[in-house]
Amino acid sequence: MLGEAASALGLQTVVLAEHPTDAAVGIATDVLPGVPAVEADLRALAERAPVVTFDHEQVDLDLLARVEASGTIIRPGLRTLQLATDKLEMRIRLAAAGVPGPAFAALAADDPVGAVRKFADDHGWPVVVKAARGGYDGKGVWPVSSPDDAAAVCRAATGPLLVEELVPIDAELAVLVARRPGGETVTWAPVETTQVDGVCREVLVPGRLDRAVADAAVTIGRRVADVADAVGVLAIELFWAGGQLLVNEIAARPHNSGHWTIDGAVTSQFENHLRAVLDLPLGSTGPTAPAVASVNVFGDPDGTDPAAVLAAGLVVDGAHVHLYGKEPRPGRKLGHVTVCGDDADDVRSRAWAAALALGTPDRRYR
Amino acid sequence: MLGEAASALGLQTVVLAEHPTDAAVGIATDVLPGVPAVEADLRALAERAPVVTFDHEQVDLDLLARVEASGTIIRPGLRTLQLATDKLEMRIRLAAAGVPGPAFAALAADDPVGAVRKFADDHGWPVVVKAARGGYDGKGVWPVSSPDDAAAVCRAATGPLLVEELVPIDAELAVLVARRPGGETVTWAPVETTQVDGVCREVLVPGRLDRAVADAAVTIGRRVADVADAVGVLAIELFWAGGQLLVNEIAARPHNSGHWTIDGAVTSQFENHLRAVLDLPLGSTGPTAPAVASVNVFGDPDGTDPAAVLAAGLVVDGAHVHLYGKEPRPGRKLGHVTVCGDDADDVRSRAWAAALALGTPDRRYR
Repeated sequence: MLGEAASALGLQTVVLAEHPTDAAVGIATDVLPGVPAVEADLRALAERAPVVTFDHEQVDLDLLARVEASGTIIRPGLRTLQLATDKLEMRIRLAAAGVPGPAFAALAADDPVGAVRKFADDHGWPVVVKAARGGYDGKGVWPVSSPDDAAAVCRAATGPLLVEELVPIDAELAVLVARRPGGETVTWAPVETTQVDGVCREVLVPGRLDRAVADAAVTIGRRVADVADAVGVLAIELFWAGGQLLVNEIAARPHNSGHWTIDGAVTSQFENHLRAVLDLPLGSTGPTAPAVASVNVFGDPDGTDPAAVLAAGLVVDGAHVHLYGKEPRPGRKLGHVTVCGDDADDVRSRAWAAALALGTPDRRYR
Repeated sequence: MLGEAASALGLQTVVLAEHPTDAAVGIATDVLPGVPAVEADLRALAERAPVVTFDHEQVDLDLLARVEASGTIIRPGLRTLQLATDKLEMRIRLAAAGVPGPAFAALAADDPVGAVRKFADDHGWPVVVKAARGGYDGKGVWPVSSPDDAAAVCRAATGPLLVEELVPIDAELAVLVARRPGGETVTWAPVETTQVDGVCREVLVPGRLDRAVADAAVTIGRRVADVADAVGVLAIELFWAGGQLLVNEIAARPHNSGHWTIDGAVTSQFENHLRAVLDLPLGSTGPTAPAVASVNVFGDPDGTDPAAVLAAGLVVDGAHVHLYGKEPRPGRKLGHVTVCGDDADDVRSRAWAAALALGTPDRRYR
């Protein structure tokens, strides 16, 4: 989707791709085979492009620091990626800046279970143990109800851990921010997201959010972007819990919660990410319709390729079908459908109709 | 732009490209070097794709007929391309179907000037002599005021010619139609176009068109699509002249008068062209805003690359900048800018502001 936005602007893209079947290969102006964790590959990419950016978080920060030190412009930069790829670093920096989040504590490597117990004494069971690094889509996040649970999780986990209070979630929100190197910042309308098993299923704009809550989310989003010294798109996932907004997670890249902006906003997150990392003026983020719904398309258990049933999705009135050209696997995110309109229920039901027709399993959403 | 639409739908495209710098090369899933007028090249393309389509009119109809006869699916098909690439054939078939157009006559090769004179006796001077084939952007169209003029034009021209009455144009319109093989047809809102020296400069939606005129244009567009047996997008350019709508030209492909649909309609002409030629359900063509303006970006006389001044275009609020990645040359069409909004004057002035900032010469439009 970044490639599509780049093409419209007449920008050339070089993609560092591990496999020739990677989705970005088909759209890039040029392709370098390789992986970003291999120094020679990353340096070869840097030689080809004035700016290097990422659409994922599988980054080696030490390597990036070396490459950046030799003059490559990497956006977002190290300080942003540190915050976005390390949940403990994120919690520490946001808390220091007064950004609201769940209570948390680092788990010392020598006695993690003791630290969980101590934290639970203050905040009550259950708690949530998280891997500081490498988690996504619910992976690396473990609800823990007892010291025994905690011991099992800590034994199985590798790398630094933290513990957080289990927040009684009333709703999940996301706010998307784009920020240029000089600090110029735009935000899109906050969205309500629905996660199942840690994976985003649907995004509703504006969702059921109270205007005041949405405004508060935007304020938090801008603050986080400043704290992160973000360049490019930053997605801030929030909990609405007991009358409070709390930052849950941060992604320093175009994010699933912002795919709706391709069809539902004047400027998409992908275009503004490119504009931001190239230090170009940012585009208007206004919505193009009063209500927008975006529903993810996942591989069904039979491995049906949504591309093979494309007509069934396209027949739904107003359905903007986006398929990523990925090989279908059960449960794999293969695309999304966005519908824009006047009525929240109507756009939601049409987006779901198309996503279901494309094979997405309908757990909890019949 | 077809490639961007294909990518969003997860469709794979193979482009037959003469030069590695052709704009479509960067966006295609795969590229075959070659030209569509060379049989081996066209057959190599046909082997790679279930459907062959075109984004230009440099087609060899005899060759296409041979390739089609051996089983390749070419959409639009021969009958449509004949009408779109031969102005005389177009006039004859549309007139036979009762579609309104200027009075015309074929110019016999043995006495073209005599035929022009005879036509002018009936319809008055000046008249317009046209090459039946190969013209575009005002090329191959000659206003002629006297038998001497006619003699000069006919001497210089090659290939079959026709003569048409010179219509007193009050406005120029275009209506865009997408049609599936089975006949399912959608139309977008008719637009007002402004041409300078035969080249489209701006497209306004809905423009100053009376609702009744717009409706009549749609009726004509649908009729033309049926007469042409169109598959894919068909652009019908019309004159509004003395209280009458007259068909001027036809293009059997996504067309400059429809570039606004990328940002200003629920489904773009590019997406619906793909959907039509793949016999998939067509998407909604409704506009996304009450007023849309699209202004072409041309190379300035100094050869400035709009890509080099991209920031100046992007800073205009709501400007959707599309650059085609073509090498800049004075007068070459290098991109377009679309702005959507509530007020016709406002969107027009913003689209022009961005196009001028990107270097387009401002002849007649300061």
